[in-house]
Formats: sequence, C-alpha cells, structure tokens
Amino acid sequence: MNPADPHGHGAALALLERGRALAAPALRTAVDRLAPPMHNVAAYHFGWIDAHGRPTEADSGKAVRPALALLSAEAAGAGAEAGVPGAVAVELVHNFSLLHDDLMDGDEQRRHRDTVWKVHGPAQAILVGDALFALAVEVILEGGTEHTARAARRLAAASRKLVDGQAQDIAFEHRERVSVAECLEMEGNKTGALLACAAGIGAVIGGADDALADALETYGHHLGLAFQAVDDLLGIWGDPAATGKLTWSDLRQRKKSLPVVAAVAAEGPAAERLTALLTADAKKTQEEFEDFDEAEFATRAALIEEAGGRSWTEEEARRQHHTALAALDSLDMPAGVREQLTALADFVVVRRK
Amino acid sequence: MNPADPHGHGAALALLERGRALAAPALRTAVDRLAPPMHNVAAYHFGWIDAHGRPTEADSGKAVRPALALLSAEAAGAGAEAGVPGAVAVELVHNFSLLHDDLMDGDEQRRHRDTVWKVHGPAQAILVGDALFALAVEVILEGGTEHTARAARRLAAASRKLVDGQAQDIAFEHRERVSVAECLEMEGNKTGALLACAAGIGAVIGGADDALADALETYGHHLGLAFQAVDDLLGIWGDPAATGKLTWSDLRQRKKSLPVVAAVAAEGPAAERLTALLTADAKKTQEEFEDFDEAEFATRAALIEEAGGRSWTEEEARRQHHTALAALDSLDMPAGVREQLTALADFVVVRRK
Repeated sequence: MNPADPHGHGAALALLERGRALAAPALRTAVDRLAPPMHNVAAYHFGWIDAHGRPTEADSGKAVRPALALLSAEAAGAGAEAGVPGAVAVELVHNFSLLHDDLMDGDEQRRHRDTVWKVHGPAQAILVGDALFALAVEVILEGGTEHTARAARRLAAASRKLVDGQAQDIAFEHRERVSVAECLEMEGNKTGALLACAAGIGAVIGGADDALADALETYGHHLGLAFQAVDDLLGIWGDPAATGKLTWSDLRQRKKSLPVVAAVAAEGPAAERLTALLTADAKKTQEEFEDFDEAEFATRAALIEEAGGRSWTEEEARRQHHTALAALDSLDMPAGVREQLTALADFVVVRRK
Repeated sequence: MNPADPHGHGAALALLERGRALAAPALRTAVDRLAPPMHNVAAYHFGWIDAHGRPTEADSGKAVRPALALLSAEAAGAGAEAGVPGAVAVELVHNFSLLHDDLMDGDEQRRHRDTVWKVHGPAQAILVGDALFALAVEVILEGGTEHTARAARRLAAASRKLVDGQAQDIAFEHRERVSVAECLEMEGNKTGALLACAAGIGAVIGGADDALADALETYGHHLGLAFQAVDDLLGIWGDPAATGKLTWSDLRQRKKSLPVVAAVAAEGPAAERLTALLTADAKKTQEEFEDFDEAEFATRAALIEEAGGRSWTEEEARRQHHTALAALDSLDMPAGVREQLTALADFVVVRRK
C-alpha cells in the first residue's frame, strides 16, 4: 500500500488531473468569446479572478465530468483529445446550471466563495448562465460532423433533464413528504443526466454507435447516482475541513436528501421521532431554524442514522456503483479503458469531499 | 384601395396567419414534452391557460418570426412545412428570452397579462426559460440531417447574441450617456439576431448554401432593426389602445431607446433642454418618477421630437427597411417569395402596434 494513497486512487486522480489539464485551456478559450462584462462574471464564477478582477487560483472542483468525457472518447477507440469539445460543452452546461441554481436556491457560497448572484447580482447570474448554455451548444456543434450533431442532441436532452431535476428539487422543498423513489428520480435528473452525458459524449464524437454510447450513458447515470448518494452522506456527516461546508450542512438547509427520505420511510421509533421533528421544523422560518444549536442537528443526524438512513444510502451508493460497472461488462472497448472507468467509479464512492 | 386594408397589408397578414397556423400546433407539441409543473408555467406564458389553469385565447403576438422561417424554407425551394422546426425553435428561443428578460427587468406585464415571474415566482421564470432553450435545440436537431445541425449552430449563435443584447441593455440603464451606435448595436443583438436567424433558418434546413442563408440573415437582421426602430417609436408615440401599453411607455421606464439617444446626440436648444431633464430624471428614484404627471412625459416627448429624435428614427426605420430589401436583390429565389419577403418588410415598418 502506498501511504500517500491509502485507497489506491492514484489512477483515478491521474485521470482527473488529465481531464483538467486537457479541458481547462479549451474551456478558457471558449469562455473568452463572451463579451467583457459577462466575461468577467464568468471568470469570477470559474474561480479565475476574484471579485475585484485579480487573477486567482481557486479550487476548480473535482472535474469528474471532463475526465469522463475524455475516457469516453477512448472507449470508442478515439484519442482522449477527441473528447475535449465534449468535456468543455458538459462543463459549460454544468456551470450554467450552477449559476442558475445558486440564484434560485439563494445559496450564498460555493467552493468557499461568494456566489455570482451575491457578488454581481441576479441579472448577471441569469445572463451568464444563459450565455454559457448557448456557448456549450456552439462548442459541441463546431466539430461540424454528423457525430457532433448527435452529441449536441444528447447534450440538449441532458440539459433539459437537469432543469427537470432542479424543478423537482424546488418542488420537494415545499412538500412535507418525499418518497425514496421520487428523491432518486430527482437525483437521476439533477446529477445522473449530465454525468451520463459526459460518459457518452466523447464516444459519440469519436464515432461510436448508439449501443456503445447508450451503455456508457447508463454507466454514467448510475455513477451519477452513486456520486449523489455519497454527496448526500457528506452533506450530513462530511468533515467540514474536507468538504468546506458547515457541519450538518444539508440538515441546516432542511434538504430532503436520500438519508433523510430513507430514514423517514423506515419503520420504528427512530423514524417516528425523526418525522415528528422534521414536521415541526418545516413550520419554522429560516431565521428560527438558523438559531438552532449544534446539538439539535446532531440529534436529527443521530435519528437518521438510527432509523437506517445512513446505512441505506451507503448501500445505495454501492448498488449504483455496481450497476454502473455492470453496464460496461459486455462492451467492446480498448484494453485499459474499462479499468480506468472502474477506477473513476471506485474513486467516486470512496471520496471524502 | 381596399378600405379594410388601407395599407395593402393583406399579403403580409396572410403570411403571419399562415405562420401561426403551421407553427402553433408544432409549438404546442414541443411544449407538451415539458413535465407538469413547468408545462403549466409555459402554457401560461404562451397564453394558452390563465393563472388558474383555465384555457384561454390570449393574444399570441404578431408572429413575424414563424412567418419568416416558413418563407425562408420557400426561398431555398423547399415547402413552407420544411421551415416548421425552425419556426418552432426560434419561437422557443424568443420566449426563453422573454421569460428571463421580464424577470431581470422587473416587468410585471406582457401583452396585457401578468408576467410569469409575477404569477409563478422568479425560480419558475428561470427554469421554464432554461427548459424552452434546451427544447429549442432538441427540436431543431431532431431533423437529424447535416442541414439541421447547421441550423442549430446558427440558432445557438443567435441566442448568444440575444443574451449579449440584453446584457448591453441592462448596462445602458446604469449609464448616463449611450451613443446612437451603441444603441443600434444593442438592438442588433437583442432584436436583429433572432429575426436574422428566423429569416435564414428555414433555408438552411431546406438545404440552402451558406451564401443564400447569409443573405437571408442580412435581410432579417436589418428587418429586425427596422422593426425595433418602429417599436421604439410606438414605445413613445404609440396609441395605447393599439399597443396595449401605457402612454409614453418607454419614457416612463426611462428607456434609452433610439429616439431618445438620437435626440440627445443632436445639437441645439431642444437637445440641451432634453439632456438636462433626463440627467435630473436619472437621479430620481423609480417612485418619485412614477409620481410624474402626464404633462411631464409629454414635455419630454415634445423635446425629443423637436430635437429630431422622432424623425431620425422614422428615417432609420426606412433605411433599415431599404437595406433589408437590398440584401434580397441578387438572390436566386422562386418567383413570389421575394414579393412575400418584401410584403412582410413593408408591414413591419408601417404597423401601428
């Protein structure tokens, strides 16, 4: 065992690094096409400059999507470089959705920085999100081949699912009860669809047939659901030093995430006590809620765990991970690509942030 | 002269009617793909249902864009029907931008009805706008040909210009002075780009080469600028009974529209008095401004006219109309299509609402 890499994630980390290295310059070139005021807002959002326009080196995220798009091209027998426009387009769509979602959700922080609507106002968050979305479609279609047109069509369909997922997420906030199936459907749209698209898009650009692209999308969809299950676990029990979020982050936001809905759906005294607390919580204003001390959130987290919400979600992450890898089983791919897709999937379910 | 049609717009009105008749069912079919909560919001926006979900027959707008998209297909020698996906895609993009712009601008009314953000909240205006944009890309790419991919690329480029135009419009609100050239550039992006796209998209789908598509886009771009110049005139001097807007509508919103910037740019006492008034106006809050009585707006309108802003804009509409038609001059088009494009252009500069 390598002590610097206790979970053996060296391969996955190298793939993420390659994705960043190849996609980042192309992403900057694409964003450079935006006109000045919007360009600055976009550069702030991506962490390239601070609120005063000074260059920064902010955390640019895990970059799972670009890594996937490049591997996807290799799965079709093309070079990783062939997947770059796909990686860029998917990143643009992802960031369009972050800009709009942060505004709709009223989230003031993302990756330890003030969100765009907070710094530059709501109109800029809407405009720049719209511009990134249009840019994504332009970038992918510039290939000018029948394959890039197919890729663009899949990208547009995934984008619409992303919007569906956000609409469901918002609707759930106003509902007292959300089922596990509904939560999974929402997460499949909000997270699964774009990871699916990333996993298929490189192959489509590389000329793969629909069968290979569909199988890769299935892998990406379930990888997205595994990713989201882990995210939901980290949102409650994650180490703030690693995640950069507050303790019990999702509980503070009263998010009906997987561990919560699974616990509520369980039977027994813990589920009943939890449900009673959450029902009372729902009647509070956000200010009253923010006055809660740590112990209140710790109580809810303990009840979720006692009712089985934590272990169910851990199990669900493993199930989705398994289903993701099963989708690759019968595929004809160049040697090594399957191992790399597996390494990436393993990383997603074991990450700590 | 036909007394029922004093301006001889029968041909143009028939083209608009045909555009509506062919595009409306396809538009409804496309919008029907949205999931229930967003579908209702979209149906409200399009005027198909009221705020309580009851079917209505609201004014669906002039529908110049669909009419253009169909004529565009005919210009390439295809049937009008070939342009329908283009008409639908352009209408979806247009309405995506209306949903977002109304929210950013805080506009509470559109076509005599409360705007979506006012009825369904800001998040729905953002979400449904995003969904319509994604749907537009899906609809146009469904053709699955090399031509529809080219059409989608032009649509994405036009959409980004639309966003640029809105960004400029918002930036101008916070500036004391806007030049005529800047105003024309903004209007070229905000109105010209999508009319250009509508005028070219049918031809592209129909298999036209880039030369014909570009010429049709040039026609559409200048038609858009003529359209906007007329809109800017109606925004100040339009008959409220015809336009459905308040008297001096654009002046109430302190819009730096063409007649205003042209008047301010002129020399002489009227321009100077106008500039002094507008500079003082800019320091007022919106509430103080709304307390103005009719005479205050009438004074500003009279000064704009005296400084030559009205006649300059009328002249500009004629110039753009002329440039639009000139773009058609050397084109090889089926007999009758040129006459119809001309009739539509004539209608645009003579309309009263």
